[in-house]
Amino acid sequence: MAANRRHVLAGMGATLAAGALMGRARAQEPGRKFGYAIVGLGSYATRQIMPRLKECEHARLVALVSGTPAKLEQYGAEYDIPATHRYSYADYDRIRDNPDIDAVYVILPNSMHAEYTIRAAQAGKHVMCEKPMAVSAAEAEAMIAACQQAGVKLMIGYRSHFEVHNLHAMELARSGVLGATRIITSEHGFNAQPNQWRLDKPLSGGGSLMDIGIYSLNAARYLAGEEPVEVSAMEFTDRSDPRFATVEDRINFQLRFPGGALASCVSSYTSNHNTYRVHGPDGWLRAEPATSYTDHQMWVHRDGKTEQVRLPTPAKNQFVAQLDHLPEAIMAGTEPRTSGTEGLRDMRIIEAIYQSAREGRAIPLTA
Amino acid sequence: MAANRRHVLAGMGATLAAGALMGRARAQEPGRKFGYAIVGLGSYATRQIMPRLKECEHARLVALVSGTPAKLEQYGAEYDIPATHRYSYADYDRIRDNPDIDAVYVILPNSMHAEYTIRAAQAGKHVMCEKPMAVSAAEAEAMIAACQQAGVKLMIGYRSHFEVHNLHAMELARSGVLGATRIITSEHGFNAQPNQWRLDKPLSGGGSLMDIGIYSLNAARYLAGEEPVEVSAMEFTDRSDPRFATVEDRINFQLRFPGGALASCVSSYTSNHNTYRVHGPDGWLRAEPATSYTDHQMWVHRDGKTEQVRLPTPAKNQFVAQLDHLPEAIMAGTEPRTSGTEGLRDMRIIEAIYQSAREGRAIPLTA
Repeated sequence: MAANRRHVLAGMGATLAAGALMGRARAQEPGRKFGYAIVGLGSYATRQIMPRLKECEHARLVALVSGTPAKLEQYGAEYDIPATHRYSYADYDRIRDNPDIDAVYVILPNSMHAEYTIRAAQAGKHVMCEKPMAVSAAEAEAMIAACQQAGVKLMIGYRSHFEVHNLHAMELARSGVLGATRIITSEHGFNAQPNQWRLDKPLSGGGSLMDIGIYSLNAARYLAGEEPVEVSAMEFTDRSDPRFATVEDRINFQLRFPGGALASCVSSYTSNHNTYRVHGPDGWLRAEPATSYTDHQMWVHRDGKTEQVRLPTPAKNQFVAQLDHLPEAIMAGTEPRTSGTEGLRDMRIIEAIYQSAREGRAIPLTA
Repeated sequence: MAANRRHVLAGMGATLAAGALMGRARAQEPGRKFGYAIVGLGSYATRQIMPRLKECEHARLVALVSGTPAKLEQYGAEYDIPATHRYSYADYDRIRDNPDIDAVYVILPNSMHAEYTIRAAQAGKHVMCEKPMAVSAAEAEAMIAACQQAGVKLMIGYRSHFEVHNLHAMELARSGVLGATRIITSEHGFNAQPNQWRLDKPLSGGGSLMDIGIYSLNAARYLAGEEPVEVSAMEFTDRSDPRFATVEDRINFQLRFPGGALASCVSSYTSNHNTYRVHGPDGWLRAEPATSYTDHQMWVHRDGKTEQVRLPTPAKNQFVAQLDHLPEAIMAGTEPRTSGTEGLRDMRIIEAIYQSAREGRAIPLTA
C-alpha cells in the first residue's frame, strides 16, 4: 500500500475504508469480474459502452441507473440485469448495499457528474466518470476529495488514452524522432443538432469546448507530455442561432508549454474536425480521424517522405481497454492513468479558456 | 482613365506623369514585351523568377540590379543583358533613362523594399515588390503614396493569388458548397538555416512571421474573402538559439472575421508546415502543400466522402501568371489584383500580431 494511500485511509471512517478494501479484495477474487453500474442510459452509454462491456477481460455490466423506467425495462431485459439491480435516481444511494456493484460509470449530463460521483463514493463504490469531469474546477476538486475520503478510485473516461494510434502518437512525439515538439495543432468539432441537453448550459456547463473541444485540449496535453503555462482564446457564437442561446459555438485557443511547444486548437459546434498534428524540426505526424470511435488513421513525415502508420489491431479496442483499466488499477493499487487529477487539469484550463475569450487577454496557468 | 487616376495625375509634375503615360503606351505597343529590371540577385530572383520570365506572354527580362559585380557579370551573360542594362545600387536611379525598363521587381531584403520601390517610382517605373511589402505599415503607406504620386502601378508578389489550386480554394470557400466558412486553419513554417539576412532584424524586420507566416495570414484573408476585425497571438522564441538572437521563431495567431469565421494560424522557423483548411457546416477543403512552388494538392470533404481535387495544368504557372499580371493591369488601366493596398493590409495585421504577442491581449483591427 502506497504511503499516500495509508495517509488517506488513516483519516477515514472505518466503515468506508473497510468497504473500499473489500472492493479491492473482491476485484482480486480469481474469476470474479469487476461489476459496473451504468448511470445514465443515453446513446453513448447504450450504443458505445454497454455493448463493449461484454468484451471486457476484467469487467462486466451488473446494474443500471436511469430516471426512465422504460429504459430500465428495455436495457435490463436486453442485458439480463435483474430488477434488484435496476435503480432510479431516487434509489441511487442503495447501490451501497449491492455487493455486485464495484463501480459506477457516470454517463449523465455534465452538470450531474459531480453529484453522482460523490454519492457513489459515499456509497463505497469506485467511479468512472465521463469527460468533461464536471462543469467547474471546484466541482472536480470536490469529486476528487470525496473519492479520496471514501478510499475509492476515480477515473475519467478519456478513451483516447487507451487507443493504440493515440498511444503511438504520444510515444512518437516524446521519442525525439520528430525532434523536440515545436507546434501542435488539435482540431475537434461537429455540426451540433438542435434540441439536446448539450446546448442547455445548466446541464452542459458550456458549449463546444465542454463537449468536443476538450478533445483538442486533452490531446494537446498528452501529445506535449507536459502542462501548459499560458492560454489565449477567441470565441465566435451567433446568439441568433437557437442552438447557441446559452452555450458557445466556436472557441479556438492557443497553449504555451514550458518546453517550447505552442498548441493551436479548434473547438467547433458548426463544422466537422477530428485531427491533430505534432511538428518538430525533423518531421511531423498527422492523425485524422484522430480521436474517433473507430477507423483512426495516421501519417508520419520524415526525411522528405510521408508514410502512413499501420498498427496491428490490438487485442482490446479503446472502450474495452478503458473499462478494464479501472479494475486493473484497483488490483495493482495504483492511480488510473486518467485519474480525477487528469480531469481536474482540463477543467482548470477550460475555465481559463473561457476567461481568456471573455477578457480578450492571455491567461497564465498554474500547475 | 479612372477618376481617381486623373486626380492623382493632376497633382503630379508633368515629367513624371508623361513618363507614366508613356509607360502605359509602351506596354500597349503591339508585339513589344513589358521589360522588367530585377533588383537583387538572390536565390528567389535567380532560381524562381528569372527563368520564368522566358515563359511570359507579356513580359521579359531587360535589366539587372545588384551590388555584386560578379553576379551582374554572371547573370548578365546568362540572360544576354548588355552592360548598359546592368546597374549597381549606386547607379540605380539611372534606370529612369532606360526606356526598355517598364518596371522593377524588388527582390531585396525586406528592409530595402521601401527605398527601392520609392526610388523606382520616382524614376517613373512601375513596381513589383516581393512580400512582405515592407518592414512596417508606415513604410508600406509611403510606398503606395510614392507610386500614386508618380502615376505608376505597385504590385506585391503574392504568387498564390495566381496559382490555380489557391484560386480554386478561394472560389470553393465563397461558393457556399461547404456552407458559410466557420473555421480556417493556415499553417506555414520551415526549419530556418542559420547565417542569412532573414535572421537579421535590421534587414528582415522580423522572423518567421515576415517571411513565411505571412502566407498563413494572407491565405486566411483570401480564403475568408473579407478583412479580420481582431487578432490574438502567442510567440515562442528560444533566444539562446543563435538563429533567433534578433528575430522571433514561432508566432501563432488567431483572427476573427466579421462574417463569423475564425482563423487559427501557424508561423514557424523551427518546423515544416505548408497547409490550410476551410471548414463550413457542410464540409471542408484541405490543401497540402498549399502555397508551394509546385506540386499543390487539395481535397474536399462533403457528404461523408473525401475526394482529391484534380485540376488541369494551367497554361501559365503561378510565377508566369504573376509576372504577366502587372503589364495586363497596366494595359487594362486597372489596379493589380495584389496591389500595394493588399500588401499594406497584411503589414497592419502583422504589426497587430506582434503587438498582441508582446502585450498578451487581443488587438482590434480597423479597416
